[in-house]
Amino acid sequence: MNQPLTPQEAQHAEETFGPLTESVRTLVDVTIRSRADDADVRRARALIEEATTLLSTRLDPGPFGVPTTTEGRPMPWGNVLIGLRNAIAPPLKIQRDENDRVTAELTLGAPYEGPPGLVHGGVCAMLLDHVLSATAHRPGDPAFTGTLTLRYVAPTPLGRLRVQAWMDHAERGKTFAAGHILDPEGTVTVEAQGVFIRPKDRA
Amino acid sequence: MNQPLTPQEAQHAEETFGPLTESVRTLVDVTIRSRADDADVRRARALIEEATTLLSTRLDPGPFGVPTTTEGRPMPWGNVLIGLRNAIAPPLKIQRDENDRVTAELTLGAPYEGPPGLVHGGVCAMLLDHVLSATAHRPGDPAFTGTLTLRYVAPTPLGRLRVQAWMDHAERGKTFAAGHILDPEGTVTVEAQGVFIRPKDRA
Repeated sequence: MNQPLTPQEAQHAEETFGPLTESVRTLVDVTIRSRADDADVRRARALIEEATTLLSTRLDPGPFGVPTTTEGRPMPWGNVLIGLRNAIAPPLKIQRDENDRVTAELTLGAPYEGPPGLVHGGVCAMLLDHVLSATAHRPGDPAFTGTLTLRYVAPTPLGRLRVQAWMDHAERGKTFAAGHILDPEGTVTVEAQGVFIRPKDRA
Repeated sequence: MNQPLTPQEAQHAEETFGPLTESVRTLVDVTIRSRADDADVRRARALIEEATTLLSTRLDPGPFGVPTTTEGRPMPWGNVLIGLRNAIAPPLKIQRDENDRVTAELTLGAPYEGPPGLVHGGVCAMLLDHVLSATAHRPGDPAFTGTLTLRYVAPTPLGRLRVQAWMDHAERGKTFAAGHILDPEGTVTVEAQGVFIRPKDRA
């Protein structure tokens, strides 16, 4: 993205690339679970490479970064957890309540598996890092993880999950946050505590 | 996978689905970086959906799990970090030296971005969880994460990285491990300590 997009252009790009990314997410899933025969896999691969060629006719040389619209709205579309254009992202949708408690509800399928039927412990860590850091977030001024401590208390099943986080306290640009992952029965599977730092505030 | 595959069938499946997954990995990357026009994006999406339909003609209903070959070799092909068939997986290739030190060298591009140009802190946590747990791993008998503590000491740039881990000590089915991520200059960017548990040993 060389020129900042206007809000209208950003919305148009969102409507163009959002559905594309959704289709790639589905493809990632079926690539794992497919039992198609060799001929169908070969044909599928040829179609995928044709799609890649079309999309590569004009390609940013580097990663997406976080460009902003002409009105200053950040577009973290490449982000591995929340990116509109990143098929790895579940994507996580962060909601804030009136007490600044942060919640993300999501459904994880086959692509996030570690032990059979379970979410990989590393994916749990990744989700908690992002949701805890959101307690320290201000638009356009992201917080960096300082430390993160995770305690795995029960297996996390694939399927619907809730990730919650809240700020414990803050001092001199450091936010001390805590949170957890809940399974569909409301059982805590992983607990987390973290310290998040906003460089600009570290005076 | 209903019937265990013979080693020959497993090798054949590897040769069929490995290249498919590589193509999907490239597609995930260009979906983020593409500046193609609307018409090309629409055509690419149609091709992707055609590929998904082909791959979905026969589909496992659940996640991949960790099936074994008739000779007992585990096939963690759906695993989010090391899975041959998982386009999210970089994939991580774990190497062990004679001192049981574990190393993974990898290159992370646009799909793993958090802050501009940097690896997402959650991805660093995910990598370290997996590599530290590998110090406790025995084939077919994976270790579960008990606790994981991460300290972020420098930004982790996208590009080539090295993740290393070693066992500190072990007692009654618990492995105490430590490790870090190194950037291309050999600077430690994230330090980690973890306790990993093999349920069978928890006597």
